[in-house]
Amino acid sequence: MKCRSCTKKAVINMRQHKLALCKEHYLEWIPEQVERAIYKYKMFTRQEKILVAVSGGKDSLSLWDILRRLEYPADGLYIGLGIDGGSDYSDESHRLSQKFADQNGLRLHVVDMVDTYGESIPDLAMRTHRGRGKPCSVCGLSKRHIMNQVAHDEAYDVLVTGHNLDDEAAVLFGNTINWQGSYLLRQAPVLEADRPGLARKAKPLCRIYEREMAAYALLRGIDYIYEECPFAVGSTSIYHKELLNKLEEDRPGAKLNFYLSFLQAKTGGLFSPEGDPDVENIHPCPSCGQPTSAPGECAFCRMFSR
Amino acid sequence: MKCRSCTKKAVINMRQHKLALCKEHYLEWIPEQVERAIYKYKMFTRQEKILVAVSGGKDSLSLWDILRRLEYPADGLYIGLGIDGGSDYSDESHRLSQKFADQNGLRLHVVDMVDTYGESIPDLAMRTHRGRGKPCSVCGLSKRHIMNQVAHDEAYDVLVTGHNLDDEAAVLFGNTINWQGSYLLRQAPVLEADRPGLARKAKPLCRIYEREMAAYALLRGIDYIYEECPFAVGSTSIYHKELLNKLEEDRPGAKLNFYLSFLQAKTGGLFSPEGDPDVENIHPCPSCGQPTSAPGECAFCRMFSR
Repeated sequence: MKCRSCTKKAVINMRQHKLALCKEHYLEWIPEQVERAIYKYKMFTRQEKILVAVSGGKDSLSLWDILRRLEYPADGLYIGLGIDGGSDYSDESHRLSQKFADQNGLRLHVVDMVDTYGESIPDLAMRTHRGRGKPCSVCGLSKRHIMNQVAHDEAYDVLVTGHNLDDEAAVLFGNTINWQGSYLLRQAPVLEADRPGLARKAKPLCRIYEREMAAYALLRGIDYIYEECPFAVGSTSIYHKELLNKLEEDRPGAKLNFYLSFLQAKTGGLFSPEGDPDVENIHPCPSCGQPTSAPGECAFCRMFSR
Repeated sequence: MKCRSCTKKAVINMRQHKLALCKEHYLEWIPEQVERAIYKYKMFTRQEKILVAVSGGKDSLSLWDILRRLEYPADGLYIGLGIDGGSDYSDESHRLSQKFADQNGLRLHVVDMVDTYGESIPDLAMRTHRGRGKPCSVCGLSKRHIMNQVAHDEAYDVLVTGHNLDDEAAVLFGNTINWQGSYLLRQAPVLEADRPGLARKAKPLCRIYEREMAAYALLRGIDYIYEECPFAVGSTSIYHKELLNKLEEDRPGAKLNFYLSFLQAKTGGLFSPEGDPDVENIHPCPSCGQPTSAPGECAFCRMFSR
């Protein structure tokens, strides 16, 4: 198969786009796609202060790389979760994030759960009611809290994450299969900072397939952590990804179409804005000041105040 | 495994309901479930004139049987589509529908496509633009038209079809995977006759799994046509059913939950009623008088006026 732009040998064939590209043109094409998404969904400008959440994985490091190549000034935030899983998962992902920052002369904020809050995610999961069974809920909650906190304290305009199309489609699938209205209403490529104390959030990779991001990282020679988080094994989101992969295999483009037609239906007015009952209860947490819909303290602070 | 009601040997185990039943109690349980759905969704009463669309398959014949057992007075409507498919598909399904009516002293209306409109479904599909590729679109359109026509001409209050949960979940899945707003807004267990010339439509089996209906037909000794329509092979709706079966296998109850949570989200106000742009263009077809959103004649009449 040949590159559509130059007829050199193609390194990737994207069936859903009917597009094959060589290394050189692929490494140009990806940032173009990201730039388009940033522009289309009004995510941020080059004049704004950008914070990228980096995990050491292919998506977030590639995103940071792409933003740098597109000349968006972006600092990184690494959150040390204290997960070992037999492979030094957190240490290794910290090392790779720091290595990428150093190689590219970028600034990386680091917040370590144990240093800052006295407990790792696995310990927190063991101790708290919310954590029982699986630490993923505690982990998601903690990451959201810390990302908001750093963005707020350091006055970033926007918080950017490396969620790719497969991530977004899997979340959408999970929310759709159970028709969770309030989650459907809130899922978007960009979430405005419409509550005091929250930064705008953006997902510039939301239209790029996971395999495309893996190919990008590989071809750019980015050194990233290959392992999934050891706690993610057997998770519902991975199960939904597999189902969507089956669909995609049989109908190329199905995943992208599922996500984009959702966004279109949403902007076309399919959903009623009154469908979100949580919005009315938002108030600042008395401990940390972040907005919450929980009664009293926010869910993060409650884990530590007991 | 034993029956929950009487400890006799169970003939069916419904994992999603955590319920195993013997033959006797299963054959009581199914009509109870149907009665509940009729009541909950306000489908029809025993005082109304009911028309059941029967195809000769397990769902529609079982539905007719259940309505009779529940003492809802219901006539049947069989539409002869003129499909052979190497197995006398239409002739055989007509014979079985008539046999059921005769055995139970029920009235069966018969409309034959060839006798009434001069063309079978396969012929119509060959001749018309709409039919190219697959006859399913032409067939669905024709059946809807004829059902409405008979219900209107014979003054039935409600038109009842044998769509089961698997049918409804597959349609919902197809509409969701492409976020087809106007279809999502119109999918419901009962559709009120809110446009002049249209009968109310109801699906009393919408919460009953396909395998439960097959078991009912078998245990009641109903003689039905086993073959799928020869044209249905490879259809998208069968593909979606298979995907949902995979989901159901891994998470018992997933199919039911998908459908019921959709209905709940809908009554809970998730969707905006302005999301349906077609409603405004409805007018009576100048040829047949049925409501249509197409410009000029309805799609059915257009097939014959050219």
